[in-house]
Amino acid sequence: MGRKIVVALGGNAILVDNPTAEAQKEAVRKTAEELVKFIENGYELIITHGNGPQVGNLLLQNLEANSKKNPAFPLDSLVAMTEGSIGYWLQNALQNALTKRKIDKQVATVITQVIVDQEDPAFQNPTKPIGPFYSEEEAEEEMKKGSGVYKEDANRGWRKVVPSPKPKGIKEIETISKLVDMGQIVIAAGGGGISVTEEKDGQLEGVEAVIDKDFASQQLANQLDAELFIILTGVDHVYVNYNQPDQKKLEKVTIEELHQYIEQNQFSPGSMLPKVEAAIDFVNKGENNKAVITSLEKIEQFISSNTGTIITK
Amino acid sequence: MGRKIVVALGGNAILVDNPTAEAQKEAVRKTAEELVKFIENGYELIITHGNGPQVGNLLLQNLEANSKKNPAFPLDSLVAMTEGSIGYWLQNALQNALTKRKIDKQVATVITQVIVDQEDPAFQNPTKPIGPFYSEEEAEEEMKKGSGVYKEDANRGWRKVVPSPKPKGIKEIETISKLVDMGQIVIAAGGGGISVTEEKDGQLEGVEAVIDKDFASQQLANQLDAELFIILTGVDHVYVNYNQPDQKKLEKVTIEELHQYIEQNQFSPGSMLPKVEAAIDFVNKGENNKAVITSLEKIEQFISSNTGTIITK
Repeated sequence: MGRKIVVALGGNAILVDNPTAEAQKEAVRKTAEELVKFIENGYELIITHGNGPQVGNLLLQNLEANSKKNPAFPLDSLVAMTEGSIGYWLQNALQNALTKRKIDKQVATVITQVIVDQEDPAFQNPTKPIGPFYSEEEAEEEMKKGSGVYKEDANRGWRKVVPSPKPKGIKEIETISKLVDMGQIVIAAGGGGISVTEEKDGQLEGVEAVIDKDFASQQLANQLDAELFIILTGVDHVYVNYNQPDQKKLEKVTIEELHQYIEQNQFSPGSMLPKVEAAIDFVNKGENNKAVITSLEKIEQFISSNTGTIITK
Repeated sequence: MGRKIVVALGGNAILVDNPTAEAQKEAVRKTAEELVKFIENGYELIITHGNGPQVGNLLLQNLEANSKKNPAFPLDSLVAMTEGSIGYWLQNALQNALTKRKIDKQVATVITQVIVDQEDPAFQNPTKPIGPFYSEEEAEEEMKKGSGVYKEDANRGWRKVVPSPKPKGIKEIETISKLVDMGQIVIAAGGGGISVTEEKDGQLEGVEAVIDKDFASQQLANQLDAELFIILTGVDHVYVNYNQPDQKKLEKVTIEELHQYIEQNQFSPGSMLPKVEAAIDFVNKGENNKAVITSLEKIEQFISSNTGTIITK
């Protein structure tokens, strides 16, 4: 049994700039050619992925055709749909990459529900904008209809906002874990997972919420006892003083150092901060846990010479 | 290890007449309350399902919003999406039904690709209509653009038609089989599976085709060595002389008798015939195989007293 790693794919691993299914498949094919290097080097691979642009487009399609005969779905069902499509693209591309190399390994996509706490403060303050822009009047009309909370978005118009609660657990953890133990590559928790809350009697109910995919991936990595958690993003390293003359690349960094950088507001809340926080949380929860933030293109160099931002205790 | 059964759910187990996600979830909740009876009676359960109305609505949404920024997806990706959404609804409802009964059993949805033969004659003669109706001029325009084959549909207008090839194999069979062996309930091959063809070098490519869900389910049941294959549909039994004064309910029937009824054109090609053929194929391929065609509502009576049309060698 190789070392278990969870790799979280960023948006650019799936959608570069062309949203056709064909172009996304092509991007995923290239991604798979990189990911398969982990397999060639003996790792056991669990893959998670974002779904921002895909679920956004799906929601727009749903709203555009919205009618009695073809009603728009709420977010939980839409996230489930993107787990299906992106999971299919990834599993197909990985299977093909393995076949080319004559590696006999199975790949499975597991539709994943992620449990969130009904008492999570995020439900009192929804912040994650989804879907199209509305005028103030339209937004008020929608709110009267009970279709959710709408907020003004950076002077660009009004948008629906949903909560972004923290993940508390992965419902399908046993399935994922057993498949990994059998040597299968597993794709799970796509788009941060389908948000469900747990009632007192244990019943799970889908809710309209967006779980940050890096936090969901960290939760999965910890629950699986993975020893390595890799967040792939658009940059090769985490930087401090990013885009300034004294910009500094972080290579080996401790969680204590990262806490200091966070206090200095070094990381942008919408992009690098959740990745750094998820990495810290993962490292904190296991004796020998290591997290890595790097780019898809640097996987080979990470494997051969530990390139990337390596986060340890 | 209990007896392995594959249960194929018909459309009415998911969508009755209201296409909202809420109403479909509610229908699936009722379905799960019936399906869980198999578990209470010690069976190992594998569930497949149709996706006709769901993928139809999704395709209409895709076409309605079709643009450079939000291009419509081809059918393989759309089928994958409905495997995600319907799989989620089913797994959630089954988990909740199990929790209520304090049964500790995992449920997993496996995104499933079904391999079809490029040489299947269906590719020369696409027959399965999908999507909206067009005028003859519009259909010709679409065909010129290379977006597929369009045919006149029963004087109602022109529609895109796709091939309906026979399934040759289930790509994720090992994953499904191992999960079943571990005692998990598995939802697989939704919508007949995502159609893929296998190139000479073993590469799998998605194609625009619709695999009949009863044939895909039969293929799955045989590959899993299930001993029972249950097709749930809108009627409690298969009938001969259906809706005529001498209508006769089939209770126990052999495949030889069924072949005779097929020759008499007793079964409608669009609905009962493929079910009967899939049942025959399943029974033919295993010494003790038994197939059942009945309704969701009669599950309990099937378990207690073998109600339904029971097909044996």
